[in-house]
Amino acid sequence: MTLPFRPATGAPWRARWFHIIFGHDDAPGRLFDVVLIIAILSSILVTVLDSVSDLHDRMSRLFYVLEWVFTLAFTAEYLMRITVVNKPRAYMRSFFGIVDLLAVLPTYLSLFLVGSQYLLVVRALRILRILRILKMTRYVDESNLLWSTLVRSRHKILIFVSTILTLVLIFGALMYLIEGPGNGFSSIPKSMYWAIVTMTTVGFGDITPHTMLGQILTSVIMLVGYSIIAVPTGIFAAELAAGMREARRRIRCASCRLDDHEADAHFCRRCGTALEHGAD
Amino acid sequence: MTLPFRPATGAPWRARWFHIIFGHDDAPGRLFDVVLIIAILSSILVTVLDSVSDLHDRMSRLFYVLEWVFTLAFTAEYLMRITVVNKPRAYMRSFFGIVDLLAVLPTYLSLFLVGSQYLLVVRALRILRILRILKMTRYVDESNLLWSTLVRSRHKILIFVSTILTLVLIFGALMYLIEGPGNGFSSIPKSMYWAIVTMTTVGFGDITPHTMLGQILTSVIMLVGYSIIAVPTGIFAAELAAGMREARRRIRCASCRLDDHEADAHFCRRCGTALEHGAD
Amino acid sequence: MTLPFRPATGAPWRARWFHIIFGHDDAPGRLFDVVLIIAILSSILVTVLDSVSDLHDRMSRLFYVLEWVFTLAFTAEYLMRITVVNKPRAYMRSFFGIVDLLAVLPTYLSLFLVGSQYLLVVRALRILRILRILKMTRYVDESNLLWSTLVRSRHKILIFVSTILTLVLIFGALMYLIEGPGNGFSSIPKSMYWAIVTMTTVGFGDITPHTMLGQILTSVIMLVGYSIIAVPTGIFAAELAAGMREARRRIRCASCRLDDHEADAHFCRRCGTALEHGAD
Amino acid sequence: MTLPFRPATGAPWRARWFHIIFGHDDAPGRLFDVVLIIAILSSILVTVLDSVSDLHDRMSRLFYVLEWVFTLAFTAEYLMRITVVNKPRAYMRSFFGIVDLLAVLPTYLSLFLVGSQYLLVVRALRILRILRILKMTRYVDESNLLWSTLVRSRHKILIFVSTILTLVLIFGALMYLIEGPGNGFSSIPKSMYWAIVTMTTVGFGDITPHTMLGQILTSVIMLVGYSIIAVPTGIFAAELAAGMREARRRIRCASCRLDDHEADAHFCRRCGTALEHGAD
Repeated sequence: MTLPFRPATGAPWRARWFHIIFGHDDAPGRLFDVVLIIAILSSILVTVLDSVSDLHDRMSRLFYVLEWVFTLAFTAEYLMRITVVNKPRAYMRSFFGIVDLLAVLPTYLSLFLVGSQYLLVVRALRILRILRILKMTRYVDESNLLWSTLVRSRHKILIFVSTILTLVLIFGALMYLIEGPGNGFSSIPKSMYWAIVTMTTVGFGDITPHTMLGQILTSVIMLVGYSIIAVPTGIFAAELAAGMREARRRIRCASCRLDDHEADAHFCRRCGTALEHGAD
Repeated sequence: MTLPFRPATGAPWRARWFHIIFGHDDAPGRLFDVVLIIAILSSILVTVLDSVSDLHDRMSRLFYVLEWVFTLAFTAEYLMRITVVNKPRAYMRSFFGIVDLLAVLPTYLSLFLVGSQYLLVVRALRILRILRILKMTRYVDESNLLWSTLVRSRHKILIFVSTILTLVLIFGALMYLIEGPGNGFSSIPKSMYWAIVTMTTVGFGDITPHTMLGQILTSVIMLVGYSIIAVPTGIFAAELAAGMREARRRIRCASCRLDDHEADAHFCRRCGTALEHGAD
Repeated sequence: MTLPFRPATGAPWRARWFHIIFGHDDAPGRLFDVVLIIAILSSILVTVLDSVSDLHDRMSRLFYVLEWVFTLAFTAEYLMRITVVNKPRAYMRSFFGIVDLLAVLPTYLSLFLVGSQYLLVVRALRILRILRILKMTRYVDESNLLWSTLVRSRHKILIFVSTILTLVLIFGALMYLIEGPGNGFSSIPKSMYWAIVTMTTVGFGDITPHTMLGQILTSVIMLVGYSIIAVPTGIFAAELAAGMREARRRIRCASCRLDDHEADAHFCRRCGTALEHGAD
Repeated sequence: MTLPFRPATGAPWRARWFHIIFGHDDAPGRLFDVVLIIAILSSILVTVLDSVSDLHDRMSRLFYVLEWVFTLAFTAEYLMRITVVNKPRAYMRSFFGIVDLLAVLPTYLSLFLVGSQYLLVVRALRILRILRILKMTRYVDESNLLWSTLVRSRHKILIFVSTILTLVLIFGALMYLIEGPGNGFSSIPKSMYWAIVTMTTVGFGDITPHTMLGQILTSVIMLVGYSIIAVPTGIFAAELAAGMREARRRIRCASCRLDDHEADAHFCRRCGTALEHGAD
């Protein structure tokens, strides 16, 4: 897998730091990755814990200091990335460049706007960088298989989601007519929210049908929702099974034409002829 | 895919408008489709938003005007379809003909009957026309595969649904006897509604068991419901996988015209003639 | 499919009535089946509607009469079955013999014991006779495939259910220690009931965790429950797919030894040799 | 399957008792297993029933005696295991050695610390010993297949769980910002708990969104949660199907000792030697 960027030309320290920051192959690059993962997880943990009022009351000073330490460190990392990359603008406009910037902006904004530090939750998006690092070093084949399965299923899933939304609209409108605002179905959008809650089998219970007719229709909605759980699962399972079968190498036996051999086969399992392995 | 109707004979403008309204192949036909989809979605959006009391209070006048604009437009479209088609009665009696009529009737009815404009939600059924347009242009193979999978699974699913309903009746009656009206299980139909809520794992929580015996039986019901989620999913996944395998390659035998061969077939399985593999 | 019983010897009317009551092959037998199905469904409907207090207040007299009509009819049917069968005792001890008796007993009991007529819900078990009739005439292959899939999966499903119950016990006991009676977890059995409600993703909401530690453990329980939905589904789908593959006829080609041909194959699809169909 | 331990050398009664306690092959060993399973289940039942306040009030004296009987019996079993095994320390440090010790400690602790007898629920872990005994005698192949399927799916499932947790963090933080403490979303950890409740389709209903924006986001969360049920199910079903196919027939090549051939193989795919099919 090739890196999306190359080191900046010029000073040799740039190339060295590029490999540390953007690379995942040698010891310093992997050390940087580990430190970065710990820093991202810690900074998210601080934001999460700061939202608990008990902890906020007792340790707001500590959280404040830690927030600024992480912000300054991420700022330094951001500037460093701009310095060592060959195309700084391309990086700044890339998805991860924008996430890296958004991860530090809220803290600076909070100096001028009270309350904007809560936007730090956007830092959660930096978790995607962790996933990306992991993806590069391991799990490449596995997540590619899962991803390509999703991509190949996209037409089927789109049809499925459209069908769900049509049903949600029709069921929601019917329940609004049957139950009415008196029983909590105060508008069609709210009825549609309730229909989604019901069809996905979540069932909060904040809104429930009270009329006999409403309960009969609800029974139908639930049975429909329960049955169509089968559809995306079936799509995904069938596509994944097909993808796993295809992952086996396909060599055609020159003698009997069997083309469904396992990856380590050297002789045809049907007629015993030696298989010719091509360029693949 | 052949169209279900043909243009009316006589004046040539009829044939031209027929291709615009009923066709999906050339530029004017596709433009009409796009405008129709936008109109249907907008008219539904107006009905949905009009049911929100906040918006109704502030913008009922705008919604009223828009509703009449859409109704008159859809009426014109309906009359146009009758005019340009070769069999107006067949169209009027077809599923989409009835839906097209029902989509405009409630607004006219609301002139005489107060409150009947809420029946406009029937317009949601016109979404099916959108699905039909999309089905004609793309997703044909995919939705055919999903649909034929459902059709082939129908016997298995019918057995499954009968089993569920029998269990719902027996569990509902037992819970009515055990818990009784005092705990919300006020009748067998209501207990059956509760049994469906529980077996589909929706679990609103508006009715819950309070006796020890009722909670034990509820545990059994939930475990049964949880286990039989597996059945429709398994049916659908297995049928879809079989359908996908069969969809792979279809070669027609030059001798006996059989066109349903497996992917690795080199000879016709009916008459033994060698199959000619084309460019694919 | 052979009938489990034979007609009683002696008077010829017994053999004729045996074929009408126990048989499903000729016109009178099928007519009897249809009448019986309608009678069973109607009698269940009467019992269900009688439990609705509104209807009971207005129509208890009608329901009372109908209940006795059905009871007398089913009693006549029961006595008839005993008369025309060759082994009356074997029938009376068989599953359906007991169900047929239990379906009429509660009405007679209600003459002596007030309230015992509610036991009529046991009549719901007669629905199984309907399923049996349907099974005999149609859906035989389909339900056999589903049933044999369940039977073949029984070891896997038993392991799965034991694992669930062990998890329920451990999670239930832990939640009882963490949350305690103050938050609704009043005993370990009640905590286990809650654990089943949560792991099966029903989630009534009548008991919910209130402590931080309880909510963390609940999150773990829910993720575990959510993940193991996959297991029974996977088991069933894989077994069903295997069963469907095996349902294809297996003939071995005498020339190339391929033994995976479709049901209507007359020539080997690989080498073109004519297939020899054995006794099968 | 070889036992993890061997009998202690020296006195022959040790070897005999080792086979009774650790073995599952001969009659005395199986009798010991049955008695142990009954004792474990009974002791758990006593602990569970003792937590029900009604039963505790009436029968606390009986429960107290039974608890000490089981504790002394399990203590004797524990000491016996140490005596008859060849490596007592290895046993004491093994998983089951620790569980066996933890199962008796709480009762002794309760002599000094009031309330510690509730820790007896740890005895529930002894159920695993039951599963182990069953595993040894039956269900070996089945549970190995399920287990190896889980192991082979571990990379895919790890990717899946990380994705879920990332979504939970992002959705939880967004709902905390949108709904806020006033609607029950009092902190980000609590919002994350709610997000797990919602995405797993449990839906207790103790916390529900009240703002329009919150309900729209909740609809998205539910549809996402509903759709990704498909992923672990699909993974497991596809892997299990693959595992079942591989488990079919294993023939060892007489020349190169490869024993992992497909069901229709007639020649070794590694060295080309003809495979000898046995009686099977």
